Amino acid sequence: MKGIGVSPGIAIGKARVLRKQEAAVTGILLKTDAETQEAIHQFDQAVKDAMAEVEGLKNMPHKTLLQAELDLLDTQLELLSDPQIRSDVVEKITRERLNAHDAILLVIRDVVQMFRSLKDEYMNARSADMEDIGQRLLAQLRQGTHKAPLAFAPNTILIAEDIAPSDTIAIDTRHVIGFATQTGGQTSHAAIIAKTRGLPAVVGCGQALEQVKDNDIVIVDGAKGQVLCNPDTTTISDYILQREAQVQQQQQLLSLKDLPCRTLDGTDITLLGNISGAADLEGVFDHFGMGAGLLRTEMLFMGRNNFPTEEEQFQFYKAAALQAMGKPVTIRTIDIGGDKQLPYYALPVEQNPFLGYRAIRLCLGEWKDIFRTQLRAILRASAFGQLKVMFPMIANLQELRDAKSILEAEKQALKMEGIPYNAHMAAGIMIEVPSAAVMADMLAKECDFFSIGTNDLCQYTLAADRMNEKVAYLYDPYNPGVLRLIANVIAQGRRHHIPVSLCGELAADPTATLLLLGMGLRQFSMSAASIPAIKHIILQRSVEEAENIYEQVMQMGTTQDITQYLQAVTP
Amino acid sequence: MKGIGVSPGIAIGKARVLRKQEAAVTGILLKTDAETQEAIHQFDQAVKDAMAEVEGLKNMPHKTLLQAELDLLDTQLELLSDPQIRSDVVEKITRERLNAHDAILLVIRDVVQMFRSLKDEYMNARSADMEDIGQRLLAQLRQGTHKAPLAFAPNTILIAEDIAPSDTIAIDTRHVIGFATQTGGQTSHAAIIAKTRGLPAVVGCGQALEQVKDNDIVIVDGAKGQVLCNPDTTTISDYILQREAQVQQQQQLLSLKDLPCRTLDGTDITLLGNISGAADLEGVFDHFGMGAGLLRTEMLFMGRNNFPTEEEQFQFYKAAALQAMGKPVTIRTIDIGGDKQLPYYALPVEQNPFLGYRAIRLCLGEWKDIFRTQLRAILRASAFGQLKVMFPMIANLQELRDAKSILEAEKQALKMEGIPYNAHMAAGIMIEVPSAAVMADMLAKECDFFSIGTNDLCQYTLAADRMNEKVAYLYDPYNPGVLRLIANVIAQGRRHHIPVSLCGELAADPTATLLLLGMGLRQFSMSAASIPAIKHIILQRSVEEAENIYEQVMQMGTTQDITQYLQAVTP
Repeated sequence: MKGIGVSPGIAIGKARVLRKQEAAVTGILLKTDAETQEAIHQFDQAVKDAMAEVEGLKNMPHKTLLQAELDLLDTQLELLSDPQIRSDVVEKITRERLNAHDAILLVIRDVVQMFRSLKDEYMNARSADMEDIGQRLLAQLRQGTHKAPLAFAPNTILIAEDIAPSDTIAIDTRHVIGFATQTGGQTSHAAIIAKTRGLPAVVGCGQALEQVKDNDIVIVDGAKGQVLCNPDTTTISDYILQREAQVQQQQQLLSLKDLPCRTLDGTDITLLGNISGAADLEGVFDHFGMGAGLLRTEMLFMGRNNFPTEEEQFQFYKAAALQAMGKPVTIRTIDIGGDKQLPYYALPVEQNPFLGYRAIRLCLGEWKDIFRTQLRAILRASAFGQLKVMFPMIANLQELRDAKSILEAEKQALKMEGIPYNAHMAAGIMIEVPSAAVMADMLAKECDFFSIGTNDLCQYTLAADRMNEKVAYLYDPYNPGVLRLIANVIAQGRRHHIPVSLCGELAADPTATLLLLGMGLRQFSMSAASIPAIKHIILQRSVEEAENIYEQVMQMGTTQDITQYLQAVTP
Repeated sequence: MKGIGVSPGIAIGKARVLRKQEAAVTGILLKTDAETQEAIHQFDQAVKDAMAEVEGLKNMPHKTLLQAELDLLDTQLELLSDPQIRSDVVEKITRERLNAHDAILLVIRDVVQMFRSLKDEYMNARSADMEDIGQRLLAQLRQGTHKAPLAFAPNTILIAEDIAPSDTIAIDTRHVIGFATQTGGQTSHAAIIAKTRGLPAVVGCGQALEQVKDNDIVIVDGAKGQVLCNPDTTTISDYILQREAQVQQQQQLLSLKDLPCRTLDGTDITLLGNISGAADLEGVFDHFGMGAGLLRTEMLFMGRNNFPTEEEQFQFYKAAALQAMGKPVTIRTIDIGGDKQLPYYALPVEQNPFLGYRAIRLCLGEWKDIFRTQLRAILRASAFGQLKVMFPMIANLQELRDAKSILEAEKQALKMEGIPYNAHMAAGIMIEVPSAAVMADMLAKECDFFSIGTNDLCQYTLAADRMNEKVAYLYDPYNPGVLRLIANVIAQGRRHHIPVSLCGELAADPTATLLLLGMGLRQFSMSAASIPAIKHIILQRSVEEAENIYEQVMQMGTTQDITQYLQAVTP
């Protein structure tokens, strides 16, 4: 079975199939006012218990939660205490005389439906949260717990339609070694959590997965996006060997921890992590990361009911600055819009949101005040560590100048108020719009660093939506046009003596490491788990060799030729 | 009042305000079956009369219709004879016992609503057609004609909410000298027709236009997108002077007809027209065009109920080949998808259609057979004139190779069948995806010519939807990144000895002419009416001067600097 591999590694184990308990409307109507009062009380109690349960998840003794997981649970707490949901349920109970179970079921179903209909990746993820909450409330109502605590046998591979956000958190990583789901994509909660937890996972396998039964032998190959059910023994031994090799490599990689990250011919390379908050830095340092090349600030704005205050933001950025203990943390300013929407601010409905009013465009327009607040909070936090600020989606010089002048104004304001900040905080830009890549020489003269966002750069350069499976075959970072743009950005950065980092998915792709090194890239930023493998490549090779590889690749015209060659020269 | 200038020129005249006669439901119910039979008969008669009326418009004595206008009337004929509409009307009459007037009104209103809700530029245009048809039918029913033949005083400027497709056709160009509308955009029917007719027009002026009353003095400045109502006499005289200058210039331009299109230092430049069918070639030749640099084939596929057959296509292309009388006609293969949809083939709903499954992507995928048929029809027509074929949206080498191999297979098939075709028909590509512009050197080795599509190239390079007004300020062909890509395509074409043409809006922009000339461009393709002004510039200047201008511009970092400079050096 073929799906989307969202977290690499091989897991071989026994299937445990989770089926969603489809709740059905009972149809029992309430007769007396006393009964409706009781039903409302039942609902309130269920909410209270469910919230306690979520709080419990937040403080589980046997695991430290990651930032993304904490955010997710906070979202659930907010949704649980949403007064709109309560009033809808109460109305169903009092007006339609539904029992508490039916009222919850119908209200949640409506909300889920509404979230789904929004055709928005982020809102769709909210629908999963909402479904999860519904299940939680109904379980509380039945006096049970949300789901019977899953007793997993060792070496369990979870098979499910989808894995609800809280499921992934509650998964006991000691026994569950991987999972496969019917639905979901690269950015579904399950995928993100699997990636951060390092569990091999394949999502979006489709209906084929329904064939799998409890205790089937299942192999999940997260790198290839493959799921095998009851394979023959030859295949199993083959995969066991592969897995052994991977485990060995993992151990080998861990032994690299104390080595300086330096090529054979003595060039130092900086490997950084992409993070969503201070808590993620621990994972980065565990995987030999030397700081954060990308701190996404969207999570701070999403999954809540209003804009974060300056103080909230300050605390968030300060926590990251402190947690980094002197290592650099590059904060990307708001990158909302496109596929990322906020529940509390209606952005215009656009025919082509990826080509629309998003990120810096919004920040220099409708959101100028919100942008100011963010910059002010970042500046204040800059007194507590090595923070840098980075503007996304810069398309021309004017935008850079405008953003910098707002930053400058906020510095002046802080100065006047006597509030400490780092007057020399570096300000750089994401290079992810083709025009910016083409005119990198001009931009380099007016900012302190570049960070190449290959995901967006690639989709714009090839005019292929990276979320659209019909054009997935075109979305391709190894296209010679894309590679030339990346090479130009790196070359111009070096020529103008500003650091260039790369924080797209290409940074974590071992096939690309030598090519990027050959282009002159000296900073790679990626998810923590990918860092050791990239370090491993860097330690074994020389810049000279990488430059030769780069030269070879630039002679080639097609992706097929390029990737074949690169795979041949990569260990 | 500010709107979207869709057709340049200055018109100064008296307002004639057209208000849509809002038809209202009468509510009169039919009592007897005889009455319902009569109502059905009335409807059928109204359809018959309306169709005769449309046929009449197609053959008006005092004007030759353009291809786009003919297509539009054909669409109306098809919609009028749509059996679904008849059955809906008949049902309303027999079941709900509505009178014919009410039945038509309600059925058409539903269809219009449906078309509007589709949020698709092309379908929205269909809603205007449908509204138009509704008005036509109701007018026939009232025994009158569609609208009282409008008796225009000389120097009339039409002011309307929107101008229905058939209105624009029926406008007597002898008396109506310009128009302004509340709604509409660059691609609305009214805009296209105004442009082809050469009437100054501003659309999308919004509610402000409601202030204008009959006989107000109105100035329409189609170039600036401005409408002035009852301006003071100084302003009027000012505009009269401007108009005089334009008229003089126009006359001067017409005197250029027989001069070879050559720069002062003796470089020949080819000016071509963008057309939608054979009938448009007349206008191109009238305006000194030397052939068609872009024959769009979408019109052949749109506004009908099924795919055109090979024979229909063959006749269409052959007509263009013959009409061109030995001059070149470059046929662009299907460019459906994005904002262009077909009523008879459901393309996938996409989050970002401009980054989606469109044009060559569709033709090398789901539509391979339709693409084959088109190529076969073009090849057959190539025996009758100087046709070339051009593939849109090429993003990498593989697509070009795949398209060429299909073309080759169709050539072989025709050869086997003994059907004549031009074995040496040139096959080129549109350069409109940034990756193609970056790797133009590689593509140049494998095709016969380039045509730069600046509209798409610009929107992708800047990641700014050209239809989205929120990011209109970013969509900018003078961005240095965009200009460098254009310059690279021209340079690589020259280096590899293949012709390079430019068929986007930039080709018709006098501000860009010298810059493009300086980059080395020798072929410009544009709407017929724009050709004389561009020729005028070319005749007066030298390539040497243009090269200096190009060099200057390439030193500049912002659009503002660039356009200011270019406007200063352009007469």
